Amino acid sequence: MLKHLLAATALATALPALAQTDPAALRDAALEDEIAWDITEGITTEVGPRLAGTQAEARARVWAVKKLTALGFSNVRSEPFKMKTWVRGEEKLEVLAPFPQPLALTALGNSGATHATGLEAEIVYFPTLAALEAAPAGSLKGKIAFVSHSMTRTQDGSQYGPFGAARRSGPATASRKGAAGILIRSIGTDYHRNPHTGGTGFPEGVTPIPAAALSLPDAEQLERILKRGQPVKVRLTLTPKQVGTTESGNVIADVPGSDPAAGIVVVACHLDSWDLGTGAFDDGAGCGIVAAAAKRIMDAGQPRRTIRVLWAGAEEVGVFGGAAYFAAHKGEKHALAAESDFGADRVWRVDFKLPDTANAVADRVATALAPLGIARGQQPAGGGADVAALVASGVAGIDLQQDGSRYFDLHHTPDDTLDKIDPAQLRQNVAAWTAMLAVVANAPEELGAAQ
Amino acid sequence: MLKHLLAATALATALPALAQTDPAALRDAALEDEIAWDITEGITTEVGPRLAGTQAEARARVWAVKKLTALGFSNVRSEPFKMKTWVRGEEKLEVLAPFPQPLALTALGNSGATHATGLEAEIVYFPTLAALEAAPAGSLKGKIAFVSHSMTRTQDGSQYGPFGAARRSGPATASRKGAAGILIRSIGTDYHRNPHTGGTGFPEGVTPIPAAALSLPDAEQLERILKRGQPVKVRLTLTPKQVGTTESGNVIADVPGSDPAAGIVVVACHLDSWDLGTGAFDDGAGCGIVAAAAKRIMDAGQPRRTIRVLWAGAEEVGVFGGAAYFAAHKGEKHALAAESDFGADRVWRVDFKLPDTANAVADRVATALAPLGIARGQQPAGGGADVAALVASGVAGIDLQQDGSRYFDLHHTPDDTLDKIDPAQLRQNVAAWTAMLAVVANAPEELGAAQ
Repeated sequence: MLKHLLAATALATALPALAQTDPAALRDAALEDEIAWDITEGITTEVGPRLAGTQAEARARVWAVKKLTALGFSNVRSEPFKMKTWVRGEEKLEVLAPFPQPLALTALGNSGATHATGLEAEIVYFPTLAALEAAPAGSLKGKIAFVSHSMTRTQDGSQYGPFGAARRSGPATASRKGAAGILIRSIGTDYHRNPHTGGTGFPEGVTPIPAAALSLPDAEQLERILKRGQPVKVRLTLTPKQVGTTESGNVIADVPGSDPAAGIVVVACHLDSWDLGTGAFDDGAGCGIVAAAAKRIMDAGQPRRTIRVLWAGAEEVGVFGGAAYFAAHKGEKHALAAESDFGADRVWRVDFKLPDTANAVADRVATALAPLGIARGQQPAGGGADVAALVASGVAGIDLQQDGSRYFDLHHTPDDTLDKIDPAQLRQNVAAWTAMLAVVANAPEELGAAQ
Repeated sequence: MLKHLLAATALATALPALAQTDPAALRDAALEDEIAWDITEGITTEVGPRLAGTQAEARARVWAVKKLTALGFSNVRSEPFKMKTWVRGEEKLEVLAPFPQPLALTALGNSGATHATGLEAEIVYFPTLAALEAAPAGSLKGKIAFVSHSMTRTQDGSQYGPFGAARRSGPATASRKGAAGILIRSIGTDYHRNPHTGGTGFPEGVTPIPAAALSLPDAEQLERILKRGQPVKVRLTLTPKQVGTTESGNVIADVPGSDPAAGIVVVACHLDSWDLGTGAFDDGAGCGIVAAAAKRIMDAGQPRRTIRVLWAGAEEVGVFGGAAYFAAHKGEKHALAAESDFGADRVWRVDFKLPDTANAVADRVATALAPLGIARGQQPAGGGADVAALVASGVAGIDLQQDGSRYFDLHHTPDDTLDKIDPAQLRQNVAAWTAMLAVVANAPEELGAAQ
């Protein structure tokens, strides 16, 4: 008996996991995490780029099911859905006059195509999206609009919303004014010749026109050329295609809780990536972080609430996976939703959207996060793209805000590759998510406002 | 009279240029230089990439003659020569198995071509050039060799020599062993997906094979894929061409000295660039620096020695311009040669190759440079590629060594663009060159050892 007791004591000492609901102990153990790196390294190496709706994204789902199963999660499954898929073609820009030279650019998602031999046209420059919007109707007939902007580096990424409008709505605006095509300065902050792609859209009745982003060095080169005052003529070649309806899907895995009535805690990321990079920062790391944290809670002992890992498909091209999840699962009781989709640099702020009755939960989360250098913010949590519909419907949300200072150096570019991940900052993310989950998955309080 | 005298005094005060041979005053005035920027901005914007032997390089010569004439130099002329010219084609690498995905690469200068539909082959990995050299003859038949290396960032760029051998001789070595193609890890230090091109060569009797460099993120991705232990099959498509004999040329401009017997001081750079970037760091800035310094001496009053500005053609592809200059001008008396061709970051060291009888000249140059943070080195000056033949023949040389810490982030990549130039460091270069020229162009001592 004594022998058994000693053995049990030794086990308890060797496995801090037995302190299964102590957020501080779980957090500190997570600072040694290898799971998030393993997932990020694995998917970026063994799948690589995984554009929504393509065979590469299908391979990512196969990879994901296998990996989440191997990690010991329950109910691991792929939930397919249909979507309209766009794929990139050739892309090239040549200045023909006054100073012949190539410039580096990439098509925006949903861009129209030029003829295979290209589109020759004159450039009309707009320093801002507002200037393009103010151009008289028809004034761009046969021309290529070139729209710049002044987005700068911020820690919270808050300039992406306002300045990103040049990408989101600029192409439709140019089309309405008769433009034959549009070029924008990449929605990014780096000076490498790796342009930033990203989705745009043409509403019903608006003709899709060729739409592309120049890298910052190329956008500034074109501005310098234009400033010489001569007409600038270019040949733009873009041959992307809408390939029709194809399959995408979400991959889902559970850590079943002991109290089904307590509701599900969803932790999300997105499995698809743009096609130019290998989707390390956006969003392989996010998938690694949320799965690693969920696994650490699972391994520490059964939590009160079910934790659901959602690796969403087709986020980049229109949050189709998030919409599919909401449509299929909105009838289930969700206690809380959160997403990691802003790179792999350290979490620096936590935002909450919790009912007043759960203020103590927010306090305990904030207390558990503070030693990681994370302070409480003043904004309500939004949840992240793939769980935004849940949170908007009344489910509680927590945002673990990552440092975005270099996010828009890499976002949607060929440079979004594994080497950009700092393993120490990735582990800090896992520690933050683990601490948060340890609190919310086991909290005795009700979390959601709308049930 | 009094009025005239006052006016002359005011003029002398307003124009420190009257202190025409004072290196310190000329140096300090050059810290406000705008000429070097103007030249670098102009050639990168109005010409852009200018590969040796192409029409783009011909446009660069026209631009150069116009610019140097406008700056007031004498005897501005283009000296043409013939060369064999290689041009880039399509370039693409797809991993077919086990993990299908594209990788970013670029052909090396003089690379052979694959069929238009590509070359499908298995990869054989070599961690070093020495490992490739040790491979048994015939062992690579039908395979693509992949050669890595361990070059790291250094201030003096000294690792380029040893590790650059993978690019210079790796392809010929692989061809001799029967390889169908070769990939190398880019000879560079940055983690952007902009691979580094650069010249390679196939000696007489060695079949040119397709040869390309992967960016560092892609080289490491391929290494990770290989480490999984399965055979790695790729499709490599490279369609460069040897286009035969075309024209290149040097552009030359003089500041005539008062004492023709004192010999010429040549200050060089190269006008051509690789085709991927706009040749700002390599070597638009060098042309800006040497011309700006020469003009500042010219404007300060006639120097004792003729200063000759040599903007050499076709350096990147084999120093053809330097060879043409030496062949045409070796009979003239040269007092000293120097070249700026290592970017646009600050000068931190000065090396000399001067006869002992000119030790006082070296001392005066070192004294004039010290306030710019430049210290005397222990190595003999080599002169730089385009003047190396002159220096090897016995002409004196001075090397103003630039900080190369980030040089191999940009070298031979698409990222070699104007935005990389730091105007303050560019001005420090002009100040250093101006101070050096103020001493050597006016030194009463003989400078050259071999006349």
